[in-house]
Amino acid sequence: MIRFDSDYIEGAHPSILEALAKSNLEQHIGYGNDDYCERARNTIREQCNDNTLGVQFLVGGTQANVTVIDALLRSYQGVISADSGHINVHETGAPEATGHKVIALPATDGRLTLKQIADCYHNHWNDFSHEHTVQPGMVYLSCPAENGLIYSKKELTEISEFCHSHNLYLFVDGARLGYGLQADGCDWTLADLAHLCDVFYIGGTKVGALFGEAVVFKGEEMHRSFRYAIKQHGGMLAKGRLLGIQFNELLKGGNDCLYFKLAKHANEMAAKIRKAFESKGIQMWIDSPTNMQFPLLTKEQQAILGTKYVPEFWCKYNDTHDVVRFCTSWATRPENVEQLCNDIVKML
Amino acid sequence: MIRFDSDYIEGAHPSILEALAKSNLEQHIGYGNDDYCERARNTIREQCNDNTLGVQFLVGGTQANVTVIDALLRSYQGVISADSGHINVHETGAPEATGHKVIALPATDGRLTLKQIADCYHNHWNDFSHEHTVQPGMVYLSCPAENGLIYSKKELTEISEFCHSHNLYLFVDGARLGYGLQADGCDWTLADLAHLCDVFYIGGTKVGALFGEAVVFKGEEMHRSFRYAIKQHGGMLAKGRLLGIQFNELLKGGNDCLYFKLAKHANEMAAKIRKAFESKGIQMWIDSPTNMQFPLLTKEQQAILGTKYVPEFWCKYNDTHDVVRFCTSWATRPENVEQLCNDIVKML
Amino acid sequence: MIRFDSDYIEGAHPSILEALAKSNLEQHIGYGNDDYCERARNTIREQCNDNTLGVQFLVGGTQANVTVIDALLRSYQGVISADSGHINVHETGAPEATGHKVIALPATDGRLTLKQIADCYHNHWNDFSHEHTVQPGMVYLSCPAENGLIYSKKELTEISEFCHSHNLYLFVDGARLGYGLQADGCDWTLADLAHLCDVFYIGGTKVGALFGEAVVFKGEEMHRSFRYAIKQHGGMLAKGRLLGIQFNELLKGGNDCLYFKLAKHANEMAAKIRKAFESKGIQMWIDSPTNMQFPLLTKEQQAILGTKYVPEFWCKYNDTHDVVRFCTSWATRPENVEQLCNDIVKML
Amino acid sequence: MIRFDSDYIEGAHPSILEALAKSNLEQHIGYGNDDYCERARNTIREQCNDNTLGVQFLVGGTQANVTVIDALLRSYQGVISADSGHINVHETGAPEATGHKVIALPATDGRLTLKQIADCYHNHWNDFSHEHTVQPGMVYLSCPAENGLIYSKKELTEISEFCHSHNLYLFVDGARLGYGLQADGCDWTLADLAHLCDVFYIGGTKVGALFGEAVVFKGEEMHRSFRYAIKQHGGMLAKGRLLGIQFNELLKGGNDCLYFKLAKHANEMAAKIRKAFESKGIQMWIDSPTNMQFPLLTKEQQAILGTKYVPEFWCKYNDTHDVVRFCTSWATRPENVEQLCNDIVKML
Repeated sequence: MIRFDSDYIEGAHPSILEALAKSNLEQHIGYGNDDYCERARNTIREQCNDNTLGVQFLVGGTQANVTVIDALLRSYQGVISADSGHINVHETGAPEATGHKVIALPATDGRLTLKQIADCYHNHWNDFSHEHTVQPGMVYLSCPAENGLIYSKKELTEISEFCHSHNLYLFVDGARLGYGLQADGCDWTLADLAHLCDVFYIGGTKVGALFGEAVVFKGEEMHRSFRYAIKQHGGMLAKGRLLGIQFNELLKGGNDCLYFKLAKHANEMAAKIRKAFESKGIQMWIDSPTNMQFPLLTKEQQAILGTKYVPEFWCKYNDTHDVVRFCTSWATRPENVEQLCNDIVKML
Repeated sequence: MIRFDSDYIEGAHPSILEALAKSNLEQHIGYGNDDYCERARNTIREQCNDNTLGVQFLVGGTQANVTVIDALLRSYQGVISADSGHINVHETGAPEATGHKVIALPATDGRLTLKQIADCYHNHWNDFSHEHTVQPGMVYLSCPAENGLIYSKKELTEISEFCHSHNLYLFVDGARLGYGLQADGCDWTLADLAHLCDVFYIGGTKVGALFGEAVVFKGEEMHRSFRYAIKQHGGMLAKGRLLGIQFNELLKGGNDCLYFKLAKHANEMAAKIRKAFESKGIQMWIDSPTNMQFPLLTKEQQAILGTKYVPEFWCKYNDTHDVVRFCTSWATRPENVEQLCNDIVKML
Repeated sequence: MIRFDSDYIEGAHPSILEALAKSNLEQHIGYGNDDYCERARNTIREQCNDNTLGVQFLVGGTQANVTVIDALLRSYQGVISADSGHINVHETGAPEATGHKVIALPATDGRLTLKQIADCYHNHWNDFSHEHTVQPGMVYLSCPAENGLIYSKKELTEISEFCHSHNLYLFVDGARLGYGLQADGCDWTLADLAHLCDVFYIGGTKVGALFGEAVVFKGEEMHRSFRYAIKQHGGMLAKGRLLGIQFNELLKGGNDCLYFKLAKHANEMAAKIRKAFESKGIQMWIDSPTNMQFPLLTKEQQAILGTKYVPEFWCKYNDTHDVVRFCTSWATRPENVEQLCNDIVKML
Repeated sequence: MIRFDSDYIEGAHPSILEALAKSNLEQHIGYGNDDYCERARNTIREQCNDNTLGVQFLVGGTQANVTVIDALLRSYQGVISADSGHINVHETGAPEATGHKVIALPATDGRLTLKQIADCYHNHWNDFSHEHTVQPGMVYLSCPAENGLIYSKKELTEISEFCHSHNLYLFVDGARLGYGLQADGCDWTLADLAHLCDVFYIGGTKVGALFGEAVVFKGEEMHRSFRYAIKQHGGMLAKGRLLGIQFNELLKGGNDCLYFKLAKHANEMAAKIRKAFESKGIQMWIDSPTNMQFPLLTKEQQAILGTKYVPEFWCKYNDTHDVVRFCTSWATRPENVEQLCNDIVKML
């Protein structure tokens, strides 16, 4: 069976394993204060074109999301998110476990619009009883969204401007950031994101690392609090160097960095799968330019492909069709994709 | 400079890196549901001689501590700990951040006594106002303690019996468990611990792994809740196999397993350092049988050794002497210890 | 100006003030352990026809809601509520502040249906990734709902049976319970409610008391925990007798008790207001049988009535009409209602 | 039996009940936005000689403590308190339930010293691992302390200066503030306290009110957040006017206000009891100038007085004597005290 059910089913890019092996017996102090982490910080600052940025490394996405939210929000504030946002759906209530309500807005295509955010904000403050409701303190965007879509630079800029003129933090969950950055039509860069957000992270787990998310931030409160918050939320890795080594390996080299190459590869693989489905007249749920593709398949079609491949059931679409996710990654082998495409064409 | 300041300054034992490399491009489902994790669970159940045990793998110790505490305690309960316990001192208030007070008892030698625990429990229930105080719900022991001491089987048994006849969970923090199990004079085994505790963990981070703690538990509530709790606290590693692979590598092989060998090595290295200090008439702070040794040194002595070695300042002892920690690990090289011992003898 | 904007704009029924005055200089121990509280507990147990019930008195509704939710739920569980439920909308995220997500289901008429609850429950457990989502642990019903509607005995019974066969607590928020019990068409009693729920409360604040909610419960965990939880959440009134005195005054006398009389009066007053609106062809938003009525009014109509009366703007209905709330209470004077009805007929 | 076990065993001063009765049927908006609350705010601002102060009314002390702590502290901060402080001992872990550790310092006489606070602060920041420990964010003082002692103006001033030059909030728990203000030797006023603290409260429950604590504060964050925090913590009383009416009644009239008179009376009663004990050579545990006195009594002496009076057992003093608390209040009758004093002289 060949798996296409997610982008974290393999280990790490071999050059990362090599870097870990090479440095393995060196002695370094813990908790992210080592030289490798410092080097990775600088690498990221260069990619973001801003050497004042704070950078800390965490192990996983839920951990990163919750630690950022709890570090920045006051006790009476909540975070605005698309109702399909990862923090609202798939983190076992982790933000709420730190005391903060997710203010979930219905997002037709998995993305928030400026209007939704602005309405939510103004409805709060125009409410005579606003003290009886959770105060919006942050906007959370997944980028790419959980369905693979990305925001345009114009959209991000407008949301950013609204946030910063209305006392809202802007936080971008970049668990799959690489795939977004390398998507056809993406008109923004890491430096743009760093400029527009208060905090975002560069996801390593799903783009070539064994694990790890690099949280990039600015602003006094984050600089003051974030390492305390990481420790309090159990996210301070003893052998922090493991994160520094990986992110340095991924992001060094400017535009030629491994991170971009690996993401580009996954997007190309996904595009091929998409084309194969479309060539058979199979409709896609959404027009995703990244590493996740969502054909609408009948139960029968699923059963046929299921004899050789493992995609992920996403949700029911209608009485005859389901949304099914095919996910590629940095590790997806071209020969497997070719075989899948052939089978799509032949078998369906 | 040769570091002796902690037991997590190197990477992982080479055979672990090899196992990671070998399995790197295999495809496995995430979140600890893969075959490697299942194999590691069975390996641990065998070592513990109980195939009904639950086993889940987390990345780090603070994460493990907080997740266990929050999974088991009711909202109005707290956890009894030595005041020197890691959860009370060095986790940035992580248990409190989940709502649970640490009921800290003064521990003269870093370990709780049965009498202390029993007094604390009975004082609570004999208090007319007990509803105005936090109800003890769990006892937390570090084993080895933060100063390297271990409990005897008799002590653990008595505490266990008290806990289980008084509705208290017994939780053992085994961040350095291997060093305890292999200490001279340790009269209990993994199977004993599994029998006596409701939950404990086998620390990997400090004993040969890149990272990871294997939480071992029994009881309905833990089986029902623990994976929810792990996810909610950000501790569910996407590529869970990384943990399964490591723990399988460490613990397979029964009494000859790598975990025991590595711990034994560290203890032997520590004993040599101790002997060197004692041969110069330098007093030890505490009679530690494990991988941490605490000589009482003058500032001058510290300065002399500090030209070549990095131990850790622990605390002030009196006006003339400080407690200084020398920590060995699975990775400590015999030649470095030999050199240190020679220098102790020659230079001090 | 005559206010109809809520049911807590006056003080307490005079006989309650008298009872407070009469007992004022007596000496009683604190925290609800006094004789008045014990008497009120027994009065309530009699009304509920179950002398094993636990009863504790809290000051207000949000306090009661949060304390119950946090006392019963495990850390990884959430509470199912109508999206219009008070806990989801108007408590500044109080449940989330104790770590528990409100699992909000869209409720077309302010009430949950059995099907919604069952679907939510089964969707959770059928989800392969259920450990990544909040586990439903409790169902919260407001009765009457925030729009004045009540559940039938059949509905309550079916929901109760589902809850108790699926390991869910059933909790009824009775902030306005009296108005529900005395509504035309209400086919259940306090004893029925006590039988069907795990925990509910009898709202005093809005039905004749100065303040106070009597939380009624059964089950081991509530008996064990609730007073701890009350204290931890700041809800344990030092002079607890104030609550015992009030609830005894309200509920003594069986079916002739003051609580029922006061609620009946308010419902009758509300029915008159409704009739007046309907006599002018003004549509009601919802068919409420309790003390809150919601005519659909134009801005002009609101302005006219606003010269003499203070109702509450509820929400926009469409481009021409708003939903406006007229609220009566135990204290509403018949002459004021008569005047309002006349003005509705004359002025609109 | 005549009770001397606490200062909240009676109801309210009769003039407060009268004020409540008189206003009972008036219609007022809820949640503390009514005219009575506004009047009481201004009364308090006048007493404090600062018309920029924020004032909000809560029902009880634990509620006030927790709401203030959680409103001001960041998630990674804790509150410094004497180990005997109410928040550390008798609130069922309420601060921890909001996520904040109480940093408890051993207080020999129930009061913190400047040196203790400064050492705690500097030890934190001088610790290389300070990110692994809870950051001190606030100093909590009980005034009077739980044993009746008060701070001098010099002590308060020095602590205040330290706090404000080191980024610590200063919060004074004034549950018994009146008794402190009226104590012999008290050299500070409400205005002084308002000047020195960031936030404090004027306790009503124990000094003449049915219930209620007036929280007085300055600073941007409290003005921005406190009403949200009150609602989130379940402390926003629906009929807020009940609090405004009481505090206006208590504090109007400048230096001749009821609050001061009632407190003075209680202190005088307590002084008589003390003299009676001392006249028999009975030692006092502590030199309390306020309404609580703590004679050291044998079991036999306790039994003798226990036939007619109810004091409170405080703690064991030594093998032969216990500390016993005699508590007076605004409601203590002179004839009861006279009788007690006679019995002390005659019976012991």
